[in-house]
Amino acid sequence: MTQQETDLERYIANNEDRFLEDLTGWLRIPSISTLPAYAGDVRRAAEYAANQLTKIGFGNVEVIATQGHPLVYGEWLKATGKPTLLIYGHYDVQPVDPVELWNSPPFEPTVRNGNLYARGASDDKGQTMLIIKALESLLAVNGKLPINVKVLIEGEEEAGGEAVAQYVKTHTDKLACDTAFICDTHMPSKDAPALISGLRGIIYTEVEVHGAQRDLHSGSYGGIAPNPLHALAIIISRLKDAEGHIHVPGLYDKLRPGSEIEQDFWQKDPLNFAEALREEMGVAQLTGEAEYPPLERIWARPTLEVHGIAGGFVGEGAKTVIPAVAKAKISLRLPPDLHSSEVFTLLERAVKEAAPPDVTVTVRNLHGGEGLVVEPDNSAMQAAAAALKGIYGKDPVYIREGGSIPIAALFSEKLHAPVVLMGFGLPDDNLHAPNEKYSLSQFFKGIRVVANFLQNLAA
Amino acid sequence: MTQQETDLERYIANNEDRFLEDLTGWLRIPSISTLPAYAGDVRRAAEYAANQLTKIGFGNVEVIATQGHPLVYGEWLKATGKPTLLIYGHYDVQPVDPVELWNSPPFEPTVRNGNLYARGASDDKGQTMLIIKALESLLAVNGKLPINVKVLIEGEEEAGGEAVAQYVKTHTDKLACDTAFICDTHMPSKDAPALISGLRGIIYTEVEVHGAQRDLHSGSYGGIAPNPLHALAIIISRLKDAEGHIHVPGLYDKLRPGSEIEQDFWQKDPLNFAEALREEMGVAQLTGEAEYPPLERIWARPTLEVHGIAGGFVGEGAKTVIPAVAKAKISLRLPPDLHSSEVFTLLERAVKEAAPPDVTVTVRNLHGGEGLVVEPDNSAMQAAAAALKGIYGKDPVYIREGGSIPIAALFSEKLHAPVVLMGFGLPDDNLHAPNEKYSLSQFFKGIRVVANFLQNLAA
Repeated sequence: MTQQETDLERYIANNEDRFLEDLTGWLRIPSISTLPAYAGDVRRAAEYAANQLTKIGFGNVEVIATQGHPLVYGEWLKATGKPTLLIYGHYDVQPVDPVELWNSPPFEPTVRNGNLYARGASDDKGQTMLIIKALESLLAVNGKLPINVKVLIEGEEEAGGEAVAQYVKTHTDKLACDTAFICDTHMPSKDAPALISGLRGIIYTEVEVHGAQRDLHSGSYGGIAPNPLHALAIIISRLKDAEGHIHVPGLYDKLRPGSEIEQDFWQKDPLNFAEALREEMGVAQLTGEAEYPPLERIWARPTLEVHGIAGGFVGEGAKTVIPAVAKAKISLRLPPDLHSSEVFTLLERAVKEAAPPDVTVTVRNLHGGEGLVVEPDNSAMQAAAAALKGIYGKDPVYIREGGSIPIAALFSEKLHAPVVLMGFGLPDDNLHAPNEKYSLSQFFKGIRVVANFLQNLAA
Repeated sequence: MTQQETDLERYIANNEDRFLEDLTGWLRIPSISTLPAYAGDVRRAAEYAANQLTKIGFGNVEVIATQGHPLVYGEWLKATGKPTLLIYGHYDVQPVDPVELWNSPPFEPTVRNGNLYARGASDDKGQTMLIIKALESLLAVNGKLPINVKVLIEGEEEAGGEAVAQYVKTHTDKLACDTAFICDTHMPSKDAPALISGLRGIIYTEVEVHGAQRDLHSGSYGGIAPNPLHALAIIISRLKDAEGHIHVPGLYDKLRPGSEIEQDFWQKDPLNFAEALREEMGVAQLTGEAEYPPLERIWARPTLEVHGIAGGFVGEGAKTVIPAVAKAKISLRLPPDLHSSEVFTLLERAVKEAAPPDVTVTVRNLHGGEGLVVEPDNSAMQAAAAALKGIYGKDPVYIREGGSIPIAALFSEKLHAPVVLMGFGLPDDNLHAPNEKYSLSQFFKGIRVVANFLQNLAA
């Protein structure tokens, strides 16, 4: 170790408790972007991030008003002649329902068994805070960063908001960079560091079915009345069968197979991902298209899921209503070559064809984002791989991420920069579910990896 | 008109405003039996009914505690040698959601265009109050009733409670009667008085589907995770197809065709019920089994409806959750020969066979009730028919009721008494829906019909 490396390590080790406090302070703010009642908290979370950036020595720190929730921006651009890294994170979180299933309140961060439990602990406040702490450590020890850094933190990632996309599209000069870095992904396990070689896109829709002009009593009308809930069941069952095949004509046409290396990895599954996921889900067998390996199904195949069905009566007891209207939230995950707006058109047509003739159906496009393929052989990916190896002691695996990070495709398209997707979440972090957690050891290792990554990029 | 008839008519005419006030006072009490939060209001509504019975001169008035909501009982048994009529009504009401669709608050009764708008106005406080007011009028004018009368008013009709059934089964002597009278049905139109020749039974169930042991993120697990909402869609679509055929093996085996007169009525539909219902629903065509006439479909065919589906996320915006658990409320309406507990067994088997293999399914029987056929040629039905003709000027039609009144079958079975089902609701009363209303002219005519009915029973 060089003296500089020793100093950095000492600084990080000495400040771990405070780093954690700075994270838990952020996690206490219920910044649920999708629920309008929390708009004030979302703003507070933005201001908290901006204060952090100011405190560590970043300049031009702004909380940027948008049509939706604010963006947070800050920069440190004093490394003349060195490359520029654009770092992205998000400070908003998912809703917490069903809140009764949380073992500790979602916005009272609690440490148990080496994990920090809170909504947003992993997705994405924990992962964003570790970057800020890496930047703080480098600045504190060296008085400077090894490269130029721009930080952009958004507040609508969980709500499919347009603000960050609008901002990127209209501020390409301000955000110009040599590499983009997104820390919103996970590793297969604590000793399997990973970089993401591809992401699925998404299209999130709401299907609304109208039957009669008012709610009806099933005793008086059952037998002649359209039932929008039943119609939705028919539509959904026709869109995807019990074997996981999606019946949206044209959907599979543009799908490209993975590279040979990827296909080999999916087939062999050397880290036993599929078995770990099966155990974690607590199911006897995996669902879905049996003719494709499980890893291909979660990383590189399109999928269709229904997330909720509203209409009628779901309270305690019995109400014999035939509702006038019912709605379903339905999304598709889209491998890189399937464009979200094209798929929306296909889906809309398929829904209308699947609908029984006695109801009227509309499909709303709530939001969409594109997938991405990242090549592992660019220099930024190599700098990240070396940083991971330095801390974890082994080469990363190159995996795909089944989740959607629309901003990644946007950075690639608008800023023409390679996108490094490196995260420290774990598969059992309970993202979007009760008891979300983040591993403390992953948080502290992440700080060290990111510091090393920046140093490698300077070389 | 006899002097007695003239006096009765004068009393009713002079007291219409107060009769309406007594009804609106009852309607202001939100006696929603299915929601535990309203238990106190339910009790208040019971006491209100008991006070009414006491005020008009009934004896042995009780608010009877049960395992659920209380029963109200009162009697007038001074007509020695005359027959005894048991009168049934219910004072509980349906929930009011979606409350935002009401044009006036559901528990602030409001008169518009000759209708009284309030939850329970028609079902069943309005219809129960008109009986009390008929009894009051007879007692006030004559100092006595022409026959013996027992009144039993329950508070769990909309909640499928067991209290009244338990009470009837264990109090057959107390409730012994020559005829039972239930006022909880409707007429086809204001100038088509009707008596009910048959009722459908019901079985109301909750189907619960379990997938993974916790909620999952569709990005990380979509493609290999069981989705209970999708499984429910498949189950529901398999239980009933888009043409209205129910696929519950054995369900249709015991179904008996209607009488020749009924079949003729269903086929010819001389009052154009089907067209009126279609217009009222605001749909282009009726749904369901095209090979049966619409009236047979709503009155005498079994039907299956889904009333609500819970699980996942139905709030504003987008949440990409695959829920661990989802539930559907599913009921079947059952013509007289289909026994509810037998059908539950058939349904449970069909649900389990329809379920995809990657989920586990349980079916809960929330409540059930039997159907009934009533022959029009008994003397009680003839007394009711004559009373209707006296006020409406025309003979009643004999129709079936698609809705379920389990107490009717129970009275028939336990008290061995013919059951007269005569009601004054109208098809557009918005039962169980926003903007429930009761026609004021039907309320006031109903008082007169019931008074006449009692006099005819004495003859």
